[in-house]
Amino acid sequence: MTVTYSSKVANATFFGFHRLLLKWRGSIYKLLYREFIAFAILYTAISMMYRLLLTGAQKRYFEKLSIYCDRYAEQIPVTFVLGFYVTLVVNRWWNQFVNLPWPDRLMFLISSSVHGRDEYGRLLRRTLMRYVNLTSLLIFRSVSTAVFKRFPTIDHVVEAGFMTAEERKLFDHLKSPHLKYWVPFIWFGNLASKARKEGRIRDSVDLQSLMTEMNRYRSWCSLLFGYDWVGIPLVYTQVVTLAVYTFFFACLIGRQFLDPTKGYAGHDLDLYIPIFTLLQFFFYAGWLKVAEQLINPFGEDDDDFETNWCIDRNLQVSLLAVDEMHMSLPKMKKDIYWDDSAAQPPYTLAAADYCIPSFLGSTIQMGLSGSYFPGGEE
Amino acid sequence: MTVTYSSKVANATFFGFHRLLLKWRGSIYKLLYREFIAFAILYTAISMMYRLLLTGAQKRYFEKLSIYCDRYAEQIPVTFVLGFYVTLVVNRWWNQFVNLPWPDRLMFLISSSVHGRDEYGRLLRRTLMRYVNLTSLLIFRSVSTAVFKRFPTIDHVVEAGFMTAEERKLFDHLKSPHLKYWVPFIWFGNLASKARKEGRIRDSVDLQSLMTEMNRYRSWCSLLFGYDWVGIPLVYTQVVTLAVYTFFFACLIGRQFLDPTKGYAGHDLDLYIPIFTLLQFFFYAGWLKVAEQLINPFGEDDDDFETNWCIDRNLQVSLLAVDEMHMSLPKMKKDIYWDDSAAQPPYTLAAADYCIPSFLGSTIQMGLSGSYFPGGEE
Amino acid sequence: MTVTYSSKVANATFFGFHRLLLKWRGSIYKLLYREFIAFAILYTAISMMYRLLLTGAQKRYFEKLSIYCDRYAEQIPVTFVLGFYVTLVVNRWWNQFVNLPWPDRLMFLISSSVHGRDEYGRLLRRTLMRYVNLTSLLIFRSVSTAVFKRFPTIDHVVEAGFMTAEERKLFDHLKSPHLKYWVPFIWFGNLASKARKEGRIRDSVDLQSLMTEMNRYRSWCSLLFGYDWVGIPLVYTQVVTLAVYTFFFACLIGRQFLDPTKGYAGHDLDLYIPIFTLLQFFFYAGWLKVAEQLINPFGEDDDDFETNWCIDRNLQVSLLAVDEMHMSLPKMKKDIYWDDSAAQPPYTLAAADYCIPSFLGSTIQMGLSGSYFPGGEE
Amino acid sequence: MTVTYSSKVANATFFGFHRLLLKWRGSIYKLLYREFIAFAILYTAISMMYRLLLTGAQKRYFEKLSIYCDRYAEQIPVTFVLGFYVTLVVNRWWNQFVNLPWPDRLMFLISSSVHGRDEYGRLLRRTLMRYVNLTSLLIFRSVSTAVFKRFPTIDHVVEAGFMTAEERKLFDHLKSPHLKYWVPFIWFGNLASKARKEGRIRDSVDLQSLMTEMNRYRSWCSLLFGYDWVGIPLVYTQVVTLAVYTFFFACLIGRQFLDPTKGYAGHDLDLYIPIFTLLQFFFYAGWLKVAEQLINPFGEDDDDFETNWCIDRNLQVSLLAVDEMHMSLPKMKKDIYWDDSAAQPPYTLAAADYCIPSFLGSTIQMGLSGSYFPGGEE
Amino acid sequence: MTVTYSSKVANATFFGFHRLLLKWRGSIYKLLYREFIAFAILYTAISMMYRLLLTGAQKRYFEKLSIYCDRYAEQIPVTFVLGFYVTLVVNRWWNQFVNLPWPDRLMFLISSSVHGRDEYGRLLRRTLMRYVNLTSLLIFRSVSTAVFKRFPTIDHVVEAGFMTAEERKLFDHLKSPHLKYWVPFIWFGNLASKARKEGRIRDSVDLQSLMTEMNRYRSWCSLLFGYDWVGIPLVYTQVVTLAVYTFFFACLIGRQFLDPTKGYAGHDLDLYIPIFTLLQFFFYAGWLKVAEQLINPFGEDDDDFETNWCIDRNLQVSLLAVDEMHMSLPKMKKDIYWDDSAAQPPYTLAAADYCIPSFLGSTIQMGLSGSYFPGGEE
Repeated sequence: MTVTYSSKVANATFFGFHRLLLKWRGSIYKLLYREFIAFAILYTAISMMYRLLLTGAQKRYFEKLSIYCDRYAEQIPVTFVLGFYVTLVVNRWWNQFVNLPWPDRLMFLISSSVHGRDEYGRLLRRTLMRYVNLTSLLIFRSVSTAVFKRFPTIDHVVEAGFMTAEERKLFDHLKSPHLKYWVPFIWFGNLASKARKEGRIRDSVDLQSLMTEMNRYRSWCSLLFGYDWVGIPLVYTQVVTLAVYTFFFACLIGRQFLDPTKGYAGHDLDLYIPIFTLLQFFFYAGWLKVAEQLINPFGEDDDDFETNWCIDRNLQVSLLAVDEMHMSLPKMKKDIYWDDSAAQPPYTLAAADYCIPSFLGSTIQMGLSGSYFPGGEE
Repeated sequence: MTVTYSSKVANATFFGFHRLLLKWRGSIYKLLYREFIAFAILYTAISMMYRLLLTGAQKRYFEKLSIYCDRYAEQIPVTFVLGFYVTLVVNRWWNQFVNLPWPDRLMFLISSSVHGRDEYGRLLRRTLMRYVNLTSLLIFRSVSTAVFKRFPTIDHVVEAGFMTAEERKLFDHLKSPHLKYWVPFIWFGNLASKARKEGRIRDSVDLQSLMTEMNRYRSWCSLLFGYDWVGIPLVYTQVVTLAVYTFFFACLIGRQFLDPTKGYAGHDLDLYIPIFTLLQFFFYAGWLKVAEQLINPFGEDDDDFETNWCIDRNLQVSLLAVDEMHMSLPKMKKDIYWDDSAAQPPYTLAAADYCIPSFLGSTIQMGLSGSYFPGGEE
Repeated sequence: MTVTYSSKVANATFFGFHRLLLKWRGSIYKLLYREFIAFAILYTAISMMYRLLLTGAQKRYFEKLSIYCDRYAEQIPVTFVLGFYVTLVVNRWWNQFVNLPWPDRLMFLISSSVHGRDEYGRLLRRTLMRYVNLTSLLIFRSVSTAVFKRFPTIDHVVEAGFMTAEERKLFDHLKSPHLKYWVPFIWFGNLASKARKEGRIRDSVDLQSLMTEMNRYRSWCSLLFGYDWVGIPLVYTQVVTLAVYTFFFACLIGRQFLDPTKGYAGHDLDLYIPIFTLLQFFFYAGWLKVAEQLINPFGEDDDDFETNWCIDRNLQVSLLAVDEMHMSLPKMKKDIYWDDSAAQPPYTLAAADYCIPSFLGSTIQMGLSGSYFPGGEE
Repeated sequence: MTVTYSSKVANATFFGFHRLLLKWRGSIYKLLYREFIAFAILYTAISMMYRLLLTGAQKRYFEKLSIYCDRYAEQIPVTFVLGFYVTLVVNRWWNQFVNLPWPDRLMFLISSSVHGRDEYGRLLRRTLMRYVNLTSLLIFRSVSTAVFKRFPTIDHVVEAGFMTAEERKLFDHLKSPHLKYWVPFIWFGNLASKARKEGRIRDSVDLQSLMTEMNRYRSWCSLLFGYDWVGIPLVYTQVVTLAVYTFFFACLIGRQFLDPTKGYAGHDLDLYIPIFTLLQFFFYAGWLKVAEQLINPFGEDDDDFETNWCIDRNLQVSLLAVDEMHMSLPKMKKDIYWDDSAAQPPYTLAAADYCIPSFLGSTIQMGLSGSYFPGGEE
Repeated sequence: MTVTYSSKVANATFFGFHRLLLKWRGSIYKLLYREFIAFAILYTAISMMYRLLLTGAQKRYFEKLSIYCDRYAEQIPVTFVLGFYVTLVVNRWWNQFVNLPWPDRLMFLISSSVHGRDEYGRLLRRTLMRYVNLTSLLIFRSVSTAVFKRFPTIDHVVEAGFMTAEERKLFDHLKSPHLKYWVPFIWFGNLASKARKEGRIRDSVDLQSLMTEMNRYRSWCSLLFGYDWVGIPLVYTQVVTLAVYTFFFACLIGRQFLDPTKGYAGHDLDLYIPIFTLLQFFFYAGWLKVAEQLINPFGEDDDDFETNWCIDRNLQVSLLAVDEMHMSLPKMKKDIYWDDSAAQPPYTLAAADYCIPSFLGSTIQMGLSGSYFPGGEE
């Protein structure tokens, strides 16, 4: 359930991003409050122990330990590691988004090049479209927990109308120890080829377009499967996690306020609440949470892709486009700029400021000197 | 309203970029002056309080607090986090720019492959072109506040001539809970297919080109929609914002000039005006402003894309190209280099220096030694 | 044998990544335990020597040496170098993954455009498909140790059914001092061209699609070969390795606990076990291990690609698709949404929450003011 | 006038890059000497003032100020900001280079698929080619100051032979407030379509190739225009410039040699000439100059693209290819390897070392153990 | 002569990369030993001078100078600058590799779609293929010193059989001041077009494929030329070189061991051999050498591309493919899995472990609860 805040950041305003700090859904607070409480309790416990339980010599030892921890906490390159790692995760996440399979390109071609308004024509277009949707559904079931919960078995797929009983039988009949998401894709090819032979598709060139698009669609699907299968190597994730956890472990001890009267450097002040350490926790742990949320965008996090919605939208829209809209065109009429070569759509008052002159290139304001060709006409 | 300064930076000159520091529109000053004033007032208030209101003991406490804050301000990795985050935002912004839908490729194909200079032919070409423009307009309305202000309802779209009343009725008639920007796109496909059947498009190959281009156009549109829908995860933006705000909060206290007579390290001098802290504010807050401006480039910032201008330009130019210019060719005449195989256009005096010999590869100056094949002719 | 943990990170949870820290296969522990033990033993040996063997003056000298080493250890920019290097390695690794050759696009086209259900048709499709699989197998043999172990000679390739005896003879007959993986690829082209002449492929456009796909397939193969041939320049890898090894060598001496009674700065405490140095070892050496694992993903590491599995899957699936499934279509039946333009697949209870309204663009909540066109109808 | 030094760095040699330090054209010295002199004069002036003019108390105050400035100069993250910014600029610069429009792909297609060696055929090919060149010329005039100086008005374009007088009239006749670089592009489409109708282009498929290439050509042109129009946001450039200028301003005061006798830390030595500060100036200001030079590569810097040369080359070469070379083929003769399947071109003595055996894959040296299939023939 | 070490890093092993440290060819030692010796000699000379020649006061002055140099050496951001610069160089290097022109795609198409086993057919195919090879050879001669040494004049090209004498005459006859590598490319187009007219190429679609591929081939060639022509801006390379050289110059003085008895901070120990400085030299100078080697990958370094080998391989293989292999197909026979839909190639013992079950998606282990659709069948 993607958290969209585009409308909140359309314009840069006075401290523009501060409004974002007050959101709850998908926010750092919602993601981190449990970890934050755990960290605060541990910190307090250690602080209590130091202040109330330890004897003098123990305190001295703890103070040395704290300074030792603090010194090494600073050496851990959390920022750098997180920067590289999160960049990698964000890139993968966005690549998965742009490779989500949308059937729009195919429904466009099927609607316009698979002919016949009779029942057989409708059946043909709807069946082709259904195979398209079925291919992506089978992949989504494999990679998305949210979709798997909706369609936990092939029975559910049949029941929901993506597959007919007959198709299911044929599907089960095919023996392969491997994932069979490509089966409806092969059906699509054979059915389209049959339609060409029957003249429902009028030209091999139209068929070629269909086939190319379908192949592209499958590539999107298989790329999602690839992202699910081959993640960021476990050891990389472990390295980053270890670095962050070690850092906070060192902070728990190293960022305690030591007795100011002992005169340790940088320990002149006892604020009780380690405000900057807590902010740092928010900051680094939040950065790691970015990675946790995005590393598998097909889960159920606030920021994960809405795959179930995609399935609904794609089915409804694509059936509409290939069936009801097939050759159902509005009557052509002359548009209002018919004989006006300088068509200029009007502006509302609220938008009047956006009416600007055309940019003609950055050289347009240059003066002209020496601007004739030496040899004349040549 | 994009701020273009290409002509100002065409050549590297003496302190070349200093001229850019004096611009106002789209500048750091215009974007930041309010935040800057707020920061300066707060800093002054705290400074006043420290100098005038606090008693001796309170001053000592404040001084310790200030040093504590300063120490942690330096630990906040603002630079690094901003570097990674702004790089991400800038990449997204530029990707959105290169994916703005331009109808030029389609108008080129429609103008040359949808035939007939009669009224029906004109109607066909203009209608196809209008559907193209309508598709992008519907998307722009969804993602750009500036366009939405101009076309707040579908009525405005009809009134501005992008849609006829009849089309509108059909459009409304289609039942779908989802955004319907793809409807004119399907119309386009069906209309082009009809034109093929009627022989207005002479060959399936021409039709294929048209379809492929239209699909590409739709992909641009849907990608813009995708960028609007799935932004940078909220938690990432919050993490960066928190880091910057925390830094400045720490600076407000930590960068105060403390009493030089107390001999704190690095506090030998009382300049009253914290010139470098203010510059740092300009610097970091300005960097964050880069992100604020670019994170949604369809707003109304000085540097946002001029979508309304695009709509105007695309409509006017594309109608011109497919209607008035269709098969209106200048008579072919021999060019001035007709029998001169060494065509060499002249240079003006001002540009005479640019006439240079041709680069023939970096190896051209090498000498030749041992430059014969051992076995002779082979 | 790729280590997949996608299902474990589907959702961000309380300390979400901590579960990953407990895995063994493909983990940092499995990869590093030998190096870790070696490092710990060396560290202990030096520590013992310092504490037990050295005389007073020798101890003083060692202490100076230790401080000297520690100072320089901090100057070695391990983090930075590793960050850039690992980013490079990870990008190469992922590019190799997305360029693994999958025959799905080809089997789709062959299944639908190479006609004839008779034996000759079957033979044609199966042979074409076999050539596809053979091309990639020959490449895999060259780049992957795991595949080479399975097919150490061409005899094995013949025996496993990828090549017939006759093909093998012709293959051997071709004289070329270069790798001959492209031979079946040329056969494919000539065979497809022959099938076109015989009418088994009905149209040149279909043939073109096949040829284009096959060329794409070959490009994937040759890119893998390119990655194998031209690795990251040796000197880059050496520089990084030297930096990391030097760092740990400096740590062995520089991170010893010195006698606290001597009052060296930062040496107030003797913990015996250098917990943070060991963590740093885990951290940096683990990061380098990421590179070691991914630099050649065709080996036998836990995280390397399962090329042998790919070979099996591709052969089985592609033969199935072009033979058994050729024109074996389920009977078309009306789907359950036949006369329902608002198709809406159901949700199970467990997935009910995912049913959400459609996102219609970020501008949708804007109010309307000044929303009429000044000049009326225009 | 691009500065090419590829031949100087073909091989890594003893201190390989030092030769580059001695070049003047396009060098850091040529770009920076004015700024360097200005900086040196200011530094000297301040130094003089401190040494000669100030009284004792003023000196003490200046010394404190100097230390204060030095401390903050170190905090300004110039390196980091420049690193990210220059990377962005360099990427944009290179993208502009690879998107320079070259007519070679089009001249190849026109030369081979627009038929007829008669005058009309020549006219057709030359006119098509001229439209191609004209399209890019119109764009270059808009974005490049060097080209604008050469063709300051459309009159110059006509005079130089890119446009005929008749075309010019039609061009001016078209009413559009927007840039009209796309007009010859539409002419191209219509003319090609006419040529198809007249049978000069024999097949729709040939026409499709031409159209696709022309569209690609236009996309290159419009992308250049896009880069000119939408630059790096002004505020980003300002932020970077401010950071660098602030740094040098702080250095002017903070890097003065203070009186060694006063015992300030790090001020034990008075060298008069601040050699490292000057080197740092060279270094950081040089890095910024990289950005200044590349941010608009269509100016007149030493490293800017030679657009005027491109125009000349493209016109001359493309007319040659489509006119003189059309169907002017050398008579085919048997090559020297006609019956020698092991073609092996000879090596000169100087190049004899490059004759190496073929790389056959990294697995080739592996031994064979356990290399039989368990079940025999299967 | 690329240095391939893929087989050495196939698996991550105990200190996996240490084996790479012992290689000589292409190694850091081979590249750096001269610079290293020079640096060591200079360091020793300065050390000698300080220890033996200088008087007491001079020593004190030198010591101050050394500390001053050391302080500034640390401020030079060599790591960062090298990181960004080397990343840029490595990306360019790899892009050049993937854009090396390989004729495989073209030989595939020519072999299968240019028909006729008679002498004229052979001549046609061989000539087309020769033009392809000639195009790239002309480019390689321009950009690669190794190829230029082999073919220093066009005479050598003719003699080696890439061009016939007649072609050479025509080639010389074409007047153009620009590089003429595109001439055989135009010949190719016209010859292919002629072959289409003569029926040797049966369909325009086949011709289109050929033309598209040839255009792609030319783009690869011209991109290589572009990389040769427009290098990384000289000033960037100079900035980086200056930074590194300055750093080492500062180290020569600043990293001397000063008299421990004087009690300078960090100078308690006199080791004579500055082990860490030497390692740093190896490290930074090695990193710069990566750039030196890769900045022009067409030279004669150990890691440069083997362009001469490419030329040989491409000629031999492509002639073989289009001539001897044209329509020389093995007789089709049933494969061993003919009636076995579960084809499963065998594993050798050595590879038995790689036989693994198929990955079916990360959701496969999820349990099912609430897994029925609320409304039943719907």
